[in-house]
Amino acid sequence: MSYEIKTGNKQENPILWTGDFYNEGTGSGDIFDTLKEECGVFGVFGHPEAASMSYYGLHALQHRGEESAGICVADGRDFHYHRGMGLVKEVFDKDRIASLVGNMSIGHVRYSTSGDSRLANAQPLVFKYRDGDLAIATNGNIVNEPLIRKQLEQSGSIFQTTSDTEVLAHLIARSQKEFVEATKDALQQLVGGFAFLLMTNDKLIVASDTHGLRPLVMGRVGEAYVFASESCALEVIGAQFVRDIEPGELLVLDQNGFREDRFAEPQRKALCAMEYIYFARPDSDLNGSNLHAARKRMGSRMALEAFVDADIVTGVPDSSISAAIGYAEQTGIPYELGLIKNKYTGRTFIQPSQELREQGVKMKLSAVRRVVEGQRVVMIDDSIVRGTTSRRIVNLLREAGATEVHVRITSPPFKNPCFYGIDTPDRRELIASYKTVEEICHEINADSLAFLTPAGLIQAIGGYNSGDYKGGLCLSCFDNDYPTQVDFGGEEKDGCSC
Amino acid sequence: MSYEIKTGNKQENPILWTGDFYNEGTGSGDIFDTLKEECGVFGVFGHPEAASMSYYGLHALQHRGEESAGICVADGRDFHYHRGMGLVKEVFDKDRIASLVGNMSIGHVRYSTSGDSRLANAQPLVFKYRDGDLAIATNGNIVNEPLIRKQLEQSGSIFQTTSDTEVLAHLIARSQKEFVEATKDALQQLVGGFAFLLMTNDKLIVASDTHGLRPLVMGRVGEAYVFASESCALEVIGAQFVRDIEPGELLVLDQNGFREDRFAEPQRKALCAMEYIYFARPDSDLNGSNLHAARKRMGSRMALEAFVDADIVTGVPDSSISAAIGYAEQTGIPYELGLIKNKYTGRTFIQPSQELREQGVKMKLSAVRRVVEGQRVVMIDDSIVRGTTSRRIVNLLREAGATEVHVRITSPPFKNPCFYGIDTPDRRELIASYKTVEEICHEINADSLAFLTPAGLIQAIGGYNSGDYKGGLCLSCFDNDYPTQVDFGGEEKDGCSC
Amino acid sequence: MSYEIKTGNKQENPILWTGDFYNEGTGSGDIFDTLKEECGVFGVFGHPEAASMSYYGLHALQHRGEESAGICVADGRDFHYHRGMGLVKEVFDKDRIASLVGNMSIGHVRYSTSGDSRLANAQPLVFKYRDGDLAIATNGNIVNEPLIRKQLEQSGSIFQTTSDTEVLAHLIARSQKEFVEATKDALQQLVGGFAFLLMTNDKLIVASDTHGLRPLVMGRVGEAYVFASESCALEVIGAQFVRDIEPGELLVLDQNGFREDRFAEPQRKALCAMEYIYFARPDSDLNGSNLHAARKRMGSRMALEAFVDADIVTGVPDSSISAAIGYAEQTGIPYELGLIKNKYTGRTFIQPSQELREQGVKMKLSAVRRVVEGQRVVMIDDSIVRGTTSRRIVNLLREAGATEVHVRITSPPFKNPCFYGIDTPDRRELIASYKTVEEICHEINADSLAFLTPAGLIQAIGGYNSGDYKGGLCLSCFDNDYPTQVDFGGEEKDGCSC
Amino acid sequence: MSYEIKTGNKQENPILWTGDFYNEGTGSGDIFDTLKEECGVFGVFGHPEAASMSYYGLHALQHRGEESAGICVADGRDFHYHRGMGLVKEVFDKDRIASLVGNMSIGHVRYSTSGDSRLANAQPLVFKYRDGDLAIATNGNIVNEPLIRKQLEQSGSIFQTTSDTEVLAHLIARSQKEFVEATKDALQQLVGGFAFLLMTNDKLIVASDTHGLRPLVMGRVGEAYVFASESCALEVIGAQFVRDIEPGELLVLDQNGFREDRFAEPQRKALCAMEYIYFARPDSDLNGSNLHAARKRMGSRMALEAFVDADIVTGVPDSSISAAIGYAEQTGIPYELGLIKNKYTGRTFIQPSQELREQGVKMKLSAVRRVVEGQRVVMIDDSIVRGTTSRRIVNLLREAGATEVHVRITSPPFKNPCFYGIDTPDRRELIASYKTVEEICHEINADSLAFLTPAGLIQAIGGYNSGDYKGGLCLSCFDNDYPTQVDFGGEEKDGCSC
Repeated sequence: MSYEIKTGNKQENPILWTGDFYNEGTGSGDIFDTLKEECGVFGVFGHPEAASMSYYGLHALQHRGEESAGICVADGRDFHYHRGMGLVKEVFDKDRIASLVGNMSIGHVRYSTSGDSRLANAQPLVFKYRDGDLAIATNGNIVNEPLIRKQLEQSGSIFQTTSDTEVLAHLIARSQKEFVEATKDALQQLVGGFAFLLMTNDKLIVASDTHGLRPLVMGRVGEAYVFASESCALEVIGAQFVRDIEPGELLVLDQNGFREDRFAEPQRKALCAMEYIYFARPDSDLNGSNLHAARKRMGSRMALEAFVDADIVTGVPDSSISAAIGYAEQTGIPYELGLIKNKYTGRTFIQPSQELREQGVKMKLSAVRRVVEGQRVVMIDDSIVRGTTSRRIVNLLREAGATEVHVRITSPPFKNPCFYGIDTPDRRELIASYKTVEEICHEINADSLAFLTPAGLIQAIGGYNSGDYKGGLCLSCFDNDYPTQVDFGGEEKDGCSC
Repeated sequence: MSYEIKTGNKQENPILWTGDFYNEGTGSGDIFDTLKEECGVFGVFGHPEAASMSYYGLHALQHRGEESAGICVADGRDFHYHRGMGLVKEVFDKDRIASLVGNMSIGHVRYSTSGDSRLANAQPLVFKYRDGDLAIATNGNIVNEPLIRKQLEQSGSIFQTTSDTEVLAHLIARSQKEFVEATKDALQQLVGGFAFLLMTNDKLIVASDTHGLRPLVMGRVGEAYVFASESCALEVIGAQFVRDIEPGELLVLDQNGFREDRFAEPQRKALCAMEYIYFARPDSDLNGSNLHAARKRMGSRMALEAFVDADIVTGVPDSSISAAIGYAEQTGIPYELGLIKNKYTGRTFIQPSQELREQGVKMKLSAVRRVVEGQRVVMIDDSIVRGTTSRRIVNLLREAGATEVHVRITSPPFKNPCFYGIDTPDRRELIASYKTVEEICHEINADSLAFLTPAGLIQAIGGYNSGDYKGGLCLSCFDNDYPTQVDFGGEEKDGCSC
Repeated sequence: MSYEIKTGNKQENPILWTGDFYNEGTGSGDIFDTLKEECGVFGVFGHPEAASMSYYGLHALQHRGEESAGICVADGRDFHYHRGMGLVKEVFDKDRIASLVGNMSIGHVRYSTSGDSRLANAQPLVFKYRDGDLAIATNGNIVNEPLIRKQLEQSGSIFQTTSDTEVLAHLIARSQKEFVEATKDALQQLVGGFAFLLMTNDKLIVASDTHGLRPLVMGRVGEAYVFASESCALEVIGAQFVRDIEPGELLVLDQNGFREDRFAEPQRKALCAMEYIYFARPDSDLNGSNLHAARKRMGSRMALEAFVDADIVTGVPDSSISAAIGYAEQTGIPYELGLIKNKYTGRTFIQPSQELREQGVKMKLSAVRRVVEGQRVVMIDDSIVRGTTSRRIVNLLREAGATEVHVRITSPPFKNPCFYGIDTPDRRELIASYKTVEEICHEINADSLAFLTPAGLIQAIGGYNSGDYKGGLCLSCFDNDYPTQVDFGGEEKDGCSC
Repeated sequence: MSYEIKTGNKQENPILWTGDFYNEGTGSGDIFDTLKEECGVFGVFGHPEAASMSYYGLHALQHRGEESAGICVADGRDFHYHRGMGLVKEVFDKDRIASLVGNMSIGHVRYSTSGDSRLANAQPLVFKYRDGDLAIATNGNIVNEPLIRKQLEQSGSIFQTTSDTEVLAHLIARSQKEFVEATKDALQQLVGGFAFLLMTNDKLIVASDTHGLRPLVMGRVGEAYVFASESCALEVIGAQFVRDIEPGELLVLDQNGFREDRFAEPQRKALCAMEYIYFARPDSDLNGSNLHAARKRMGSRMALEAFVDADIVTGVPDSSISAAIGYAEQTGIPYELGLIKNKYTGRTFIQPSQELREQGVKMKLSAVRRVVEGQRVVMIDDSIVRGTTSRRIVNLLREAGATEVHVRITSPPFKNPCFYGIDTPDRRELIASYKTVEEICHEINADSLAFLTPAGLIQAIGGYNSGDYKGGLCLSCFDNDYPTQVDFGGEEKDGCSC
């Protein structure tokens, strides 16, 4: 069974799979500058160069958030912290890092959101409360945060940010229990997908939601403990990977050492599938599986599910290169550099005028004429969100002379908003939620289009071996099967709130 | 009765007044880079260019705070704000100001304090609470803030800044009354000296403590209302001065117009005397009296209280120029530019090496050799805090060839810390608290030294006409007579907290 | 004989002097943001901290040029230099200064000019030529530079700047003589007013034009020699003033020590009078006379030449404060702070919108209502250039309630462009060149107007004692008597070219 | 015949080719942060948005120079230009580009060099000469530049930069002929490899050295002409590729249109082979051959010349990815992401402390443990310069668990300095100049090492089809056969001088 749809555009490929996917039909989705990762967190316990290590660790997590960066260290008595807008290397210089003295730290990188108060939302957030200082760094989203926030406001709480983190801090501070118990109580009230690092003057606390929706790993370097959203951040500082943080788990690190605890019983494992498909760095491992390898398998599997003969295979950079190589290896069709991304673009780049845009000025992505001219091209991408970007890329290839463009998406159709930390458009803007695969194929001007099946995705990721329900993955953006309650009487919150 | 002391250093001036000041003896005090103003506030109600006007208004108040600046505007639905470290002109550019759309605004400039979380303290602080958005800008200090903060923390409040403003926001949010009444309740709990501007999505509230310790004036420009720490900020935007805000007063401006109210009965008027002596700009008026004129009268009065014959009179720039001219006019001794300040120094200036310092590199202040060489100099300054700066300036004059240096301070000896917004050193560092005038004279290497008497100060300011107790002034830093309770069982706070 | 003119505006002051000035009639002139100083230079020979000293020295000369700053040091083998746009403290930081290792240096500050290639003109200019490295810093203007440049271009020279300095470098490089002789030859070809500092890998050369039109002083600190445009820059680094550089003089400092030489016979001494009137810092000395004192004498003399009774005297800040005090001392009319300048304005300041300007937003200068309201004011200013600024200031005073405004200018009418380094408008824009004093008085809306006579100016400066022709001053901008040829067949250059 | 060498390190691969290469033995070479590209140039003639197009074009050439960027436009009367340190997007913002009005322009990006006068060397250099303005942008190096410079200095020329460009400007200006003829005369005097763009107020001139050593292409967009160092810069602005500029060619564009001319007869075509191997962007075409494809062929050819069995193939990013894919496709060994480069590093990145370096903090490049652990790895790289980087990368792979590391270099041993624009180390530092392949293999800790043969390189590039001597390539860094005279009696210059 496959997932492809032909269009009448140019060629008579058979429709291999018509989108009978949990009875929902067909889909499509592009991700290029549309989906936003929510954040990355990094923590150190017990290392004299905690701030420096955080600098390198956050740098390795930079792809998870380019808008702001922050590090807070504890020296046993005081907190020292700095946060700013921009990349890690822009926010911190040598003097800044040198001023952050202490052997325990938490750090954060965050993606761009709107609003004129952006710096205020930069994490780690730092609070004073009854027992001293408290810093929190988060990756994820609390679905029932608006409800809790409203209740807190009704009882007189004030908020300085729009971050979930502030809600958690309020809940902890309002508890009459001691800090660790107060934190457990607070976490139990939260519904959503999140990875938290909390730091007081003498403690580091690490917690993951009860489904393990957001990735969080533990490592060691010498006597020190390190925590990060992805394993690539361990590697970069020379730390040894130890294990993933479990659903519902809560770790306490203080002068008494390292203590494993939990704030709730684990529920079905449901790690975000988009981490595998798109977000995580290819050199990271998630649940024991390397991302580059998993993506290659997605490409191979795609070749089996929806093979199309062609002259070259190309991937949309950067995230789909691995999958494209997998497709090429499986089929023997050569992998070529048909699309190239300019690595120097970024926040400060000047947009071209309308006239230059019409003339054909390309910003980030160009098709390589000499490679694609006269060729039948298989274009591998990871997702289609609104469809506009896919259409643009297909057209780039056609303008550069491709005779056919067959689009293969290494994920199922993206139809449902994320409530656990990915900033997705409104459901009505998700093209797969209102168009069939056939219609999308036409819309994006492709010769044929296929999506990976959920089963194919799970197998490529390696989840079938796990015996877990749905391979231990959250596939809700594809199949609408959310691991948690998401409806709280109009007060739920989707997207990302860290 | 006068206030001067001779030293045996060089000349036999009689001791004119030995410091019998409320039975406390003698004193002295320098202010050059020692006392710090606490802040300046500026508010606009009902003007389409509220942000621009705030820019110019805050710029005119820049001398009250060079560390950070911020403006928050309300457009009827949302807040737009920006805060940053640096001068007003550095924090804001054209695009920033243009993005702050709305016809109601509050703004703030703040002086340098210590700590690594400085931007977090930049005002206006902005909160979300039950009824919407709340922004607050403050000048002053709440003496019982630590006590209130502790109580709030005990009941679960968290704090993100060290500013008093956050305490006020909590108190308001925790009240079950509607906003204006809640604000009144909150203000009644505060002890201290403060001027507050509060803004919600539809209201501007202006309040002054019950003694009127910090200056705050109202002006009008067309239909719009303007509020500022000093009248010079009205002048600069073309606004008409209307009146000073009264002790305990609370003004409400909203769609129903302008309403005069109060949160407490006024108590004895006690406007900070240091505003007259040092802080306020010479072109500002306080209580109907121009500052330059008042300072000239301090100089004239000083000439009567502690005349000393000399060849030239010079003032320590910038604050004592006016007083020096007054002394010169009264005595007929010519006013000369014996000391000059480099207007280009500032935060980013490189400090000279030890070797260059010994060679005589001068940073901010130089003595003009051609003017002072071979001359007997009367040097007018406004205060002596630790004595180190006075000594440095006297020595500058001597090294430039002055044959005699007679120091005249246009305020009484500075002996007590301020609890109402001026960042003073610890009492033990105030030279006047542990040395006699004679000793200070010797310490600062002057030929003679005199301080203005409290009576002289009050008369110069014009307070005697008012019939108010102590001329309506707070003289507590001189006479230890604080207008409010300042002892709260170890939880009181001195200095500045805005 | 005096120089005042009444207007019919408000009061019947007699015309005291009708402008019979070298047969040229009457005049007036404002300088506020109109005349631009040409530059400041600073040189060090034989001090291990040459760069640091240059930093402080140039800082003291900052008023002579706020656009760009630069320092070049020689370490015996190589040059190290840095130039940038902005104030000295903005262009240099600690690391920059530390990287400029060497014990010989020349530095420069420059005023703002137009053009999009501004950084290219920042000095010191640095060249490679036959014998090694050559750096030059200049203050002044070479009148026949266009002629020389044209000749050089005809013979194949290329130019990278519009600076005179480059012409001098070409002339030196093209000479077949050794460096010092080549420099003398080159200087002899130049007509104009200039102070040059030249540096090679092993020599510092200091030269002044044959009339000494631009100021240049020598000082010593320990074994080191220091050179600066004004003596205030010696004072600030702890150096002893030695003497002024003489017209036509050329000093050579190298491993053989200090050698006095000259490239031409001195001609009549003609130091720029505007240095006394406006440019130089009040704590500088020129030709043995302190600037503040000289300006006070201008004010006193003005009181004798064109007394008018009034309630207060005020000066236009900063340059006319000294003169206003002199006028006040002479007449007994109190000096008051009727006008105040905002010290924080600068290059990055946002200009107010038209609407706010009409509302009365003041940028740099405000009148102090409480001081001038209901008063007859004598307003002292240093010059009137186009008349627009004078009119604006008079109107500021009137709007603030002044009942009469009598303008007294401490220089004669400014009628002729400068060819020696001051960037003046075209002659047709100089109001005094086409209007009588009476007309100017009316134009600037004053009740009366008077200019200082040339004789009064010379006396105040102290030049009558010197016995020199015109007191050793260049008064050409007033009397059209240029000390050098200025007409070179259409190829002459006025203004400033450093 | 192949080019591999085994070591005793781990495995018994036969030595396939012992380095009998033009009788010079063996070699090796790494390039990672060692070789520096010299520059990129971009020109526009006849487009109203010349500056904007230059912005995007230079951006596409950013990989050729990250140190400085500059654009100069001509509006028919004046030049407008801006140059600065940093990336194109850092040097230019919207306002800057908008201020560069004109329809003819030349632009430049430059690599990092040493010296404290770096901005002065930023191009385009702009001069005034007899006939008006002249701007020049260069890529390449003039071997006899020191000799010419010396002659010019002897006859009195002064230099403000160390750039060859200034020599060319002098030669043109000193000619008595009209501009185009003068330029031809000047170019005839130059020996070296260079691509020049020259602009006067009304002309654009484009020239390439007589061997075509540096790449330079022409394109059209509408009526406008575009010139660039690489074709990727045409593509990005929507221009059509027209042709390469020929050796010795000189194009003139002015109001009379486009004119083809030449300053010298073409000599043997000798385009820099390193452009194919390393410098040019993979989406560029050179001489009709796409770079990515050429690199894949280098990898395939390498597989034939020096096959080694292994578990995975990996390329050193970014430049060797294409070649690694070629090797994988040829051999069937899977291509894997064994090494990953952090795209966010750059100039401002903080270097890790010694302690953290020992702990294993990786800066730019990491090995992916999950991919390489337990695997036999073929590591493809483009060159070995000093050998230190290769050793570091091999060790990264070993530390990540690789059981064998076989290094395959897609170029012959790098033994000779470049005189035509590549900044190479001294010959004594080139490891291949003093060690055999066997020794290098041991030095870099590889299990086996092979270099591509010259014949293989030429074939992969496609040059054998051309019938040109050595495929129309300059291979001098490999075979010491320089296309031009390089010895000028000690005055020649290697490296890059633009």
